[in-house]
Amino acid sequence: MSAYDYDLFVIGGGSGGVRAARVASSLGKRVAIAEEYRYGGTCVIRGCVPKKLFVYASQFAEHFEDAEGFGWTVGESKFDWSALIAAKDKEIDRLEGLYRKGLENAGADILSTRAELTGPHSVRLTDSGREVTAERIIVAVGGTPNPHEALPGHELCISSNEAFDLEALPQSILIAGGGYIAVEFANIFTGLGVDTTLIYRGAEILSRFDIDMRRGLHEAMEAKGIRILCHDVIEKVEKTAGGMLSARTKNSGTLSVGQIMLALGRDPATHGLGLEAAGVEVDARGAIKVDEYSRTNVPSIFALGDVTDRVQLTPVAIHEAMCFIETEYKNNPTKPDHHLIATAVFSQPEIGTVGLSEDDAAKRFEEIEVYRAQFRPMKATLSGRQEKTIMKLIVNAADRKVVGAHILGHDAGEMAQLLGITLKAGCTKDDFDRTMAVHPTASEELVTMYAPSYRIRNGERV
Amino acid sequence: MSAYDYDLFVIGGGSGGVRAARVASSLGKRVAIAEEYRYGGTCVIRGCVPKKLFVYASQFAEHFEDAEGFGWTVGESKFDWSALIAAKDKEIDRLEGLYRKGLENAGADILSTRAELTGPHSVRLTDSGREVTAERIIVAVGGTPNPHEALPGHELCISSNEAFDLEALPQSILIAGGGYIAVEFANIFTGLGVDTTLIYRGAEILSRFDIDMRRGLHEAMEAKGIRILCHDVIEKVEKTAGGMLSARTKNSGTLSVGQIMLALGRDPATHGLGLEAAGVEVDARGAIKVDEYSRTNVPSIFALGDVTDRVQLTPVAIHEAMCFIETEYKNNPTKPDHHLIATAVFSQPEIGTVGLSEDDAAKRFEEIEVYRAQFRPMKATLSGRQEKTIMKLIVNAADRKVVGAHILGHDAGEMAQLLGITLKAGCTKDDFDRTMAVHPTASEELVTMYAPSYRIRNGERV
Repeated sequence: MSAYDYDLFVIGGGSGGVRAARVASSLGKRVAIAEEYRYGGTCVIRGCVPKKLFVYASQFAEHFEDAEGFGWTVGESKFDWSALIAAKDKEIDRLEGLYRKGLENAGADILSTRAELTGPHSVRLTDSGREVTAERIIVAVGGTPNPHEALPGHELCISSNEAFDLEALPQSILIAGGGYIAVEFANIFTGLGVDTTLIYRGAEILSRFDIDMRRGLHEAMEAKGIRILCHDVIEKVEKTAGGMLSARTKNSGTLSVGQIMLALGRDPATHGLGLEAAGVEVDARGAIKVDEYSRTNVPSIFALGDVTDRVQLTPVAIHEAMCFIETEYKNNPTKPDHHLIATAVFSQPEIGTVGLSEDDAAKRFEEIEVYRAQFRPMKATLSGRQEKTIMKLIVNAADRKVVGAHILGHDAGEMAQLLGITLKAGCTKDDFDRTMAVHPTASEELVTMYAPSYRIRNGERV
Repeated sequence: MSAYDYDLFVIGGGSGGVRAARVASSLGKRVAIAEEYRYGGTCVIRGCVPKKLFVYASQFAEHFEDAEGFGWTVGESKFDWSALIAAKDKEIDRLEGLYRKGLENAGADILSTRAELTGPHSVRLTDSGREVTAERIIVAVGGTPNPHEALPGHELCISSNEAFDLEALPQSILIAGGGYIAVEFANIFTGLGVDTTLIYRGAEILSRFDIDMRRGLHEAMEAKGIRILCHDVIEKVEKTAGGMLSARTKNSGTLSVGQIMLALGRDPATHGLGLEAAGVEVDARGAIKVDEYSRTNVPSIFALGDVTDRVQLTPVAIHEAMCFIETEYKNNPTKPDHHLIATAVFSQPEIGTVGLSEDDAAKRFEEIEVYRAQFRPMKATLSGRQEKTIMKLIVNAADRKVVGAHILGHDAGEMAQLLGITLKAGCTKDDFDRTMAVHPTASEELVTMYAPSYRIRNGERV
């Protein structure tokens, strides 16, 4: 009989924590998991899932417009925000139920309470004050939106958390940030009829993405009517008459809007978690430091997912959980593999990307070939919509390997997933060239770009 | 100075012929190309392109319905067939112009006439009766819908050719055939509000596709209200009062419909082409016999594309044209590669497929692993649409190579294109497993199917 109450105690019921708890439990371990808010975590409750449902909702106005070019006359349409919220909530409830059900079926103890570390093998459940012990503890508490406390009036602003449950759609919104969350919500709000402005400190949205994706999306968003203010920040927020907010900016004067959303990154949710009591080290941002096996400096305590600030993505947290299981419970030491992760930005149009941007590849390799296609999607020929799809392949000239693939356009996320396999497998441009086109598709461009658009040798375009 | 009028004479202005003529011309060859109908061929004029535009048009009714689940109220919509036809015609005109322009810029002589072979190096232009000579001749005249002349009343029926230009949408249509053309048009007509019945001799639509794709699409089409009559054929067609047609079937009684469309395969368009005069051999179906380099039994005469009945796909014809150029004009003998061609059926939902079906793989390999996922697409959770996506990977157990990939669902064609690269490159299931998921997408299922759904060993499911 073990000296501990549990073999494994998991703090945090998001994608990573639930996966670890469920699988450990199904292997016969005695497992408890504690979640203070709702099971499902950021992804299910206020991230990926409701975000994508909102994206779908925000695309219908364009469908109605596009229909005209194809012979349809569409009557007037109206959008009811509260109906969307209700439908979204029902789906989120269903998914949360599935997460709980999975844990239940595996036999884990499901606790609806905050849990804080009290030592290397112990946690306190804050609802009851009870202390429980475990041989191993996983901290998978995720992150929260950066509140930007230095901004006067920040408490008047919302984050993505609140954006998912606004009582009413504002007539206008100002979104601060240039990352994927800012960009996705700007497109969502615009699609739902909200007058939308994006303000971003940097020179161009989506830093670290390929420059063609950044510029292409910037242009597409402006064409939809989104105002984008780069090289600018909000300096002060105040309430004004009639329930409006006033945002004083550094370079663009004062803007009056219905809502202001801050999308300025996410912080590890480690505050008050008892990490000090347990002796767990964090970095300057508050993220838990872990080794290659997701183990903290305290041998019995592990951390995975967003709280470790490695790669903040749902599938990565799940992958880290599965590696933990292999390593700790299957005697098969397995390091999470964070190399070549394909991702999508569910902007409109979408971005799908895997591997190196052109700029990064040009620094890394002596010579690269850049294959670039830009074209109007077929549907747009009849809808009349002014939009363009951009596709890029970056190839290392030395060994012909495709080291980056970037798409701006419809279904870019689906494409990035499958391009991810080709990069992970080390496919060469010749493998792409050998593949017959599927016609008519957009992705056939990726196998019919026979000659490089240009090359970059020693950092110089030739 | 050559003894011939031209270095190359191309008969047929479709995708394959135009590509060969354009590239040869741009290499400095003296080239003429003759087309009796419209430049662009089946693909552009009455195939892939207008078909996909029709598919887009036929999807809007579902968009309007889906919108309700996302908070939208949509006014009454109306569809105007003649507006769609006009828009489609305008786009086809534009594309035909681009084909002509490409030939013009390359310097080819563009002839708008039927041309018939008169010898190994000569053709007669039927508009003027003029005979011209060429060192090499390419026959790329494509195919035409099988008119099924054995059917009494076949002349009352339309083929896909006429379906693209009907004066009015019928209220009801009976489509004979179980191939991709029959299936695509059944979905198009249904989406545009036409009462649609499909009649097919075989046991299940889309023979040679993976059985899960066939059954899954069959169910999805019936759920949309398409009546599918398998194991049945039309025996006689007659005109009846009020402009209707009456179709007597073998097993389903007599059906009264507004139009009957025959989609019973396509025949090589070799009739009256002068093949006998030139001594060119054809097979029993009238297809021109060619060797591995697309050369006929007459050394100066080549054939490519649908008229050779190898693989009837636009990209294949283009590929064969490019191989001809390499072989004949670049001193680089290149055989067309017809192995592992990914294809799409633009049904609703789409099918995307590459490689072997489960049944074929089970015959070919001692043991296969079948990975199968079936799920409701995310959008359907709020739209309420009853539809399912099916994804399958077929893996050869001996070497772990993915030998077949099959998808029924949205964007399946785009996915098939990129899966085509992975199969062509010989990627293994381990390459798929190593790839991080992109969430939330549909295609992430393809990299998260860790355990086989079942295995087939020596033909037995285990």
